[in-house]
Amino acid sequence: MNIGIGFLGFGHIGSGVWGVLNANADTIAHKEGTTFTLRRALVRDLRKPRAAALPDGVLTDRFEDILGDPGISVVAEFMGGVDPACGYIEALLRAGKSVVTANKEVIAQRWHRLETAAREGGAGLYYEASVGGGIPVIRTITDSLQANDIDSVMGIINGTTNHILTRMSEQGRSYDAALREAQEDGLAEPDPRNDVEGFDAAYKLSILSSLAFHARVPVDRVYREGITRMTPEVIRYGQELGYAVKLLAIGKKRGTSIEARVHPTFIPENHPLASVRGAYNAVFLHGNAVGNLMLYGRGAGDLPTASAIVSDCIVAAKAKDHRYNSFRNEARPAPEVAFDGNWQTKYFLNLEVIDRPGVLAAIAGILARRQVSVASLIQKGYGTATVPLIFVTHQTYEQSMLQAVREIESLPDIIEIKALIRVEDEDSA
Amino acid sequence: MNIGIGFLGFGHIGSGVWGVLNANADTIAHKEGTTFTLRRALVRDLRKPRAAALPDGVLTDRFEDILGDPGISVVAEFMGGVDPACGYIEALLRAGKSVVTANKEVIAQRWHRLETAAREGGAGLYYEASVGGGIPVIRTITDSLQANDIDSVMGIINGTTNHILTRMSEQGRSYDAALREAQEDGLAEPDPRNDVEGFDAAYKLSILSSLAFHARVPVDRVYREGITRMTPEVIRYGQELGYAVKLLAIGKKRGTSIEARVHPTFIPENHPLASVRGAYNAVFLHGNAVGNLMLYGRGAGDLPTASAIVSDCIVAAKAKDHRYNSFRNEARPAPEVAFDGNWQTKYFLNLEVIDRPGVLAAIAGILARRQVSVASLIQKGYGTATVPLIFVTHQTYEQSMLQAVREIESLPDIIEIKALIRVEDEDSA
Repeated sequence: MNIGIGFLGFGHIGSGVWGVLNANADTIAHKEGTTFTLRRALVRDLRKPRAAALPDGVLTDRFEDILGDPGISVVAEFMGGVDPACGYIEALLRAGKSVVTANKEVIAQRWHRLETAAREGGAGLYYEASVGGGIPVIRTITDSLQANDIDSVMGIINGTTNHILTRMSEQGRSYDAALREAQEDGLAEPDPRNDVEGFDAAYKLSILSSLAFHARVPVDRVYREGITRMTPEVIRYGQELGYAVKLLAIGKKRGTSIEARVHPTFIPENHPLASVRGAYNAVFLHGNAVGNLMLYGRGAGDLPTASAIVSDCIVAAKAKDHRYNSFRNEARPAPEVAFDGNWQTKYFLNLEVIDRPGVLAAIAGILARRQVSVASLIQKGYGTATVPLIFVTHQTYEQSMLQAVREIESLPDIIEIKALIRVEDEDSA
Repeated sequence: MNIGIGFLGFGHIGSGVWGVLNANADTIAHKEGTTFTLRRALVRDLRKPRAAALPDGVLTDRFEDILGDPGISVVAEFMGGVDPACGYIEALLRAGKSVVTANKEVIAQRWHRLETAAREGGAGLYYEASVGGGIPVIRTITDSLQANDIDSVMGIINGTTNHILTRMSEQGRSYDAALREAQEDGLAEPDPRNDVEGFDAAYKLSILSSLAFHARVPVDRVYREGITRMTPEVIRYGQELGYAVKLLAIGKKRGTSIEARVHPTFIPENHPLASVRGAYNAVFLHGNAVGNLMLYGRGAGDLPTASAIVSDCIVAAKAKDHRYNSFRNEARPAPEVAFDGNWQTKYFLNLEVIDRPGVLAAIAGILARRQVSVASLIQKGYGTATVPLIFVTHQTYEQSMLQAVREIESLPDIIEIKALIRVEDEDSA
């Protein structure tokens, strides 16, 4: 079986896919009985130098050359961003060509529109590479965990922030220094906001939790907080308490109530996610039959991403019926789903206070009035004018905690709220 | 779509599958549009009390009631062992009924025969639950890593031995005490040989490496060494060197040469597999596109196993074409594959020697003559009549090392070879 494919874009990822298709052609033919012919690759500038050479006549700057080619049955998209990718993908699907994409933004934001086009065109829409790079987390949820009610997903799904936090945790680097090093190593963009502010992780969590909970979780329902305010000092305090810090993407479901949030999180240092270092990604989930399950691997990079994309191309080409999401994939979430912004978790609160009698009593009083129960309290230092206080709470409500922190902040002896970090340490292993 | 299913056996796993089919019926119907009707369950003794109650008339002691029921399209087998399971499975496949099994022994030993029956009967043979319980490692290899040349798999695929080694490592228990505790907790069989001697892991490695390397790896080509000679003392020496001990199932492929081995292994304590504790399982593999990938979860237990079995039942019922292994699935391995019993790895060698001048020179001389290069040497203790010596080698050949150890053993001042443990510490993260 020969599969005629087209590319939308031919940059870093596209070159990786082209490389895997060539280097592993014998392996793929042997295992799957399929060969690939790249018929057309759409680029903006035909004269721009490319990392990999394509056969003559493959590069084109006209989308119609792909849309109108009856020999192309599967198109892989690497353009990124919503426009013009969305319009191209939609037109291809409506023309009956299956589309494979690594574009989390277009899936998270235009899923309903694209899936409608796929159904109506009788084509398939595949996006394994949109979350976790080479880690087959989407296919695991859809094709291996069908018999489970999944009630929790926790992911390290942004390699850039994990790399920065690993450097800060292991080498005591400041956030700025770790970011600069990541930029120098090509692991962070010159404008890093999409990663460090958690936007990238929020898109991915929207996709991941929609599939896991079988209910549309729009990206605007994902709470998002980045890593820009993390300090090595706060990380060290956490380490002293047995915690590692990760930018976690967390989705939880209780009945028809769903919470989805991306924020720096302390987890126990012996949690399987704690040992996910550097640019690695991992997704830890819980299903009511399978129990705890973790998938770990390279969440980015041309070759890992190509592994997922080529796998999707093979599945798309061979599928007799394409899989569509049977959940209510509306642009708006289903009315029966409640999004819970008042989740319960534990909190690490680091304050700088004037070391004066009564300050602790005032803070404790506020926490008590807000029903926040303190699990541990540590005062660092002694005899200086101001001292750091660290509270770790028991399970409490997000809104109670935020309210308590606002009230604490207005106390006269509080110099600064240095950190409020959520703690996930339910039993996991 | 209603799927009529049959069970072969109705013990621990069968009850778990029945439980998941009932508890998660709405979830499965919602996600997959399928419902299940259990039509018949074959048991040996109709009067034996069962953990779960089945509807009247479902239990039968006649295999023909399942084979001859046209309403049954998928049969799940939980009998275990080769006979009579193999004959039943073969007859069902030839009758066009797909079979889902957790039986690693029958797959490892009769794969060729069963797959031939499946092809000829137009039925599907599914065995996700045979390796790694609820961890979808088989489907990941076949359906998500098609585009990869996989050159290495390393698995903790026996929960019993991992539980025992975890207890010995963390609590300093002797092998006998840890085994007894595991038996008391129901985590080891009264006759534990199948687990502790590595037979169970060898069956699973045969399946896993056949799929990963796309070439039949018969179980009799798997080198096998159990954990019965491990001691807390040797584990402690390893820990001092930064190693954790695991019963690893290792498969490696270089060109057409394959090695497959199950043995206690020291791995660096920061390797992702090192944090797999207790009865958890994990498979760590390397593909030339995806890079390192690890899957972690519950490798046994009724519910995790049921998660994999019910998933396979859904896939089997919905498949338009069943997947067969396109590798040469002969009873004998393909002639072009060489099985390498002379692999290269590093070694930890623990000797008890008489503390006399010249003994070290004699050992070093033997190692040098056998081309075994020493990376580190530690002498524990001093001034006693006998002292422990620990060598860690650089990468060397298995057969050279074994020959060297035989020669060292015959030296006059050697009291005992206390341990020879293979060390896997190639770069992994």
